Amino acid sequence: MFESILKNVYEKTPLVHCITNYVTVNDVANVLLACGGSPIMADDEDDAVEITAICDALVINIGTLNKRTIATMLRTGKRANELGHPVVLDPVGAGASSLRTDTTFKLMEEVKFAVIRGNISEIKTVARGSGTTKGVDADARDAVTEETLDETIAFAKELGAKTKAVIAITGAIDIVADSDKAYIIRNGHPMMAKVSGTGCMLSAMIAAYCAANPKNHLEATAAAVCAFGLAGELAYEKLLKYDGGTSSYRTYLIDAVSKIDTEALKGGVKIETR
Amino acid sequence: MFESILKNVYEKTPLVHCITNYVTVNDVANVLLACGGSPIMADDEDDAVEITAICDALVINIGTLNKRTIATMLRTGKRANELGHPVVLDPVGAGASSLRTDTTFKLMEEVKFAVIRGNISEIKTVARGSGTTKGVDADARDAVTEETLDETIAFAKELGAKTKAVIAITGAIDIVADSDKAYIIRNGHPMMAKVSGTGCMLSAMIAAYCAANPKNHLEATAAAVCAFGLAGELAYEKLLKYDGGTSSYRTYLIDAVSKIDTEALKGGVKIETR
Amino acid sequence: MFESILKNVYEKTPLVHCITNYVTVNDVANVLLACGGSPIMADDEDDAVEITAICDALVINIGTLNKRTIATMLRTGKRANELGHPVVLDPVGAGASSLRTDTTFKLMEEVKFAVIRGNISEIKTVARGSGTTKGVDADARDAVTEETLDETIAFAKELGAKTKAVIAITGAIDIVADSDKAYIIRNGHPMMAKVSGTGCMLSAMIAAYCAANPKNHLEATAAAVCAFGLAGELAYEKLLKYDGGTSSYRTYLIDAVSKIDTEALKGGVKIETR
Repeated sequence: MFESILKNVYEKTPLVHCITNYVTVNDVANVLLACGGSPIMADDEDDAVEITAICDALVINIGTLNKRTIATMLRTGKRANELGHPVVLDPVGAGASSLRTDTTFKLMEEVKFAVIRGNISEIKTVARGSGTTKGVDADARDAVTEETLDETIAFAKELGAKTKAVIAITGAIDIVADSDKAYIIRNGHPMMAKVSGTGCMLSAMIAAYCAANPKNHLEATAAAVCAFGLAGELAYEKLLKYDGGTSSYRTYLIDAVSKIDTEALKGGVKIETR
Repeated sequence: MFESILKNVYEKTPLVHCITNYVTVNDVANVLLACGGSPIMADDEDDAVEITAICDALVINIGTLNKRTIATMLRTGKRANELGHPVVLDPVGAGASSLRTDTTFKLMEEVKFAVIRGNISEIKTVARGSGTTKGVDADARDAVTEETLDETIAFAKELGAKTKAVIAITGAIDIVADSDKAYIIRNGHPMMAKVSGTGCMLSAMIAAYCAANPKNHLEATAAAVCAFGLAGELAYEKLLKYDGGTSSYRTYLIDAVSKIDTEALKGGVKIETR
Repeated sequence: MFESILKNVYEKTPLVHCITNYVTVNDVANVLLACGGSPIMADDEDDAVEITAICDALVINIGTLNKRTIATMLRTGKRANELGHPVVLDPVGAGASSLRTDTTFKLMEEVKFAVIRGNISEIKTVARGSGTTKGVDADARDAVTEETLDETIAFAKELGAKTKAVIAITGAIDIVADSDKAYIIRNGHPMMAKVSGTGCMLSAMIAAYCAANPKNHLEATAAAVCAFGLAGELAYEKLLKYDGGTSSYRTYLIDAVSKIDTEALKGGVKIETR
């Protein structure tokens, strides 16, 4: 299945419009190029509404939101909906401040998302306003473990049903679910948490994969999560070889994204369905 | 000729003020340091007008423009003109939205540019409002090939005459022209298109080269295009050696810019005039 | 002494709120992760005031300030003061424009800083409004040399007494002083000046170190300056091994920060007190 998903990305070079934070925006742009897509960033309200029309997908990432860009997010999200483009929400830090939580809710009310990706604390906030997000990282108390996996899958499916979006909860164990079906993915490496913006990068990659696979958002999202996690594993192997630290790891991670093909993905995927 | 151009950059360490997009701004800053210049970024209107006065050149890059920064671009551009500083325009995505196209035209009306650098689609928009820019990349239908080279050179010279600026059209084949003379440059590597912001980096480097060579903007621009293209070739050699991907390539590209000297440039330049 | 300072950082993973420029913000985030802290960026006024409350320290870096973010800096700085969080000021380019100089003074009037870190020209501006800042780099005429060291130490102590902040003047020779005591640090490498944002990164690292060592801001700041300087030396060794340029150096610098431990620091520190 994943073969055709990747093939579609490479063949279509989806153009992804990102309204995203300025902390990790460059890595987001470079991951989009690396995975076979193409990035464009525009956050002025008038500009963004036009730019999104020439694109194939939209990512809304609330990482360094402000009143000006929130207005842009809302109007552009609605425009992308009208055009039938998949829209991905990355609710960075939802639960950590009223502005982030309120904006997340407002976006979910006014925009139809194809995929919502976050860490478990952010996704709990999305679901019930009860996450205990500690900054931009998941709270340790929220962590998805083998013990809490079944209940988290049920939670993800329920949220999938409620939002009609694919829910991607990423962390040590990743869950990608809609109302019916959940993929459990065990790719990835702990070093990914030592690089700023791995979540932002993945959200953009999901948008590219969904744009190239419009009828198959659940599998496209799962494929992106697997591919990015596998890239994290390959990056760690290279890190050991060259005795690098966290910044080399970032470079090797994007490198690995640029080199993953269907063969590598087929051999490296650690996925199950529940 | 290029020897003295580079020598002037190294001796003068030109300070380049950049009003530029937040996607690639860090690479722009690091390329300026790598090539022998020094960067400063300021985009608040009052701040920018003062900062530009202590600088040697200005780059206006419309990549993530908004109403606030457009006002800054216009006022700062005029101030740099008064001071006799070279001003470089990078019309990122001109043709992709009304705001970008209109801002490009407004900037060209109110500010005198020493150099305008873009891909062929952006430069066609600059010339006739008829480019078919696909996002921030050139449209394949616009591509400069050996077959369309002569007509594109004629087009560049004509636009050079009309704008009194040096026109730099970069892509697989680069053209640097004023009304009289065109340099055709075949340095570079296809991997450069897999790194976000290579165009932005080059525009800033051109500004540094022009600042250090005030009487010779055409040759300074050609030298910068050659040096950056050669850096792209050297980066590819290093990539093969260390089995890297697109992110390593970005690192090696800026590395190569930091290591190019007149000897390397003399040996590696692929240039002709028409 | 430095052993316990580093140990505290690793054990507490201080969350550092940065209101910082968009040029170097990604490196700042990655250095915070590398040194054992955790970053969060928020610059919308309402968002920032709430976000700072869940953090352990605040960095105010005026690198690409504008009227909107200046208001955020003032209000958030005061909030962090109320909460007893250490606040670090990085007066990027103070002396280079009225807005930067005036904002620096306004911030110092309204916010109590635990540490003020800058190059000598910026710190002279902080002290007397008389620095001759050339852009974001120190003016060569201001440089701290063995000849001017004693008077600069006296100057730093005096400013420490006046501001009740730890003063960190960084350059070829670093001075970290309060009213009573000065540490002179000779770690570091000239290549650090060829990477954009090394000062910004250090300011953030100082904030993490101070947050984890609340009773010992002077020593925490000195430890951060030593560790970052030592990382610069280790990065240079790696650069030679892999024949890199300025961008590889940036990667190796953050890598080295991520790998420094108390043993390495103990063996590599070049510090004296006066």
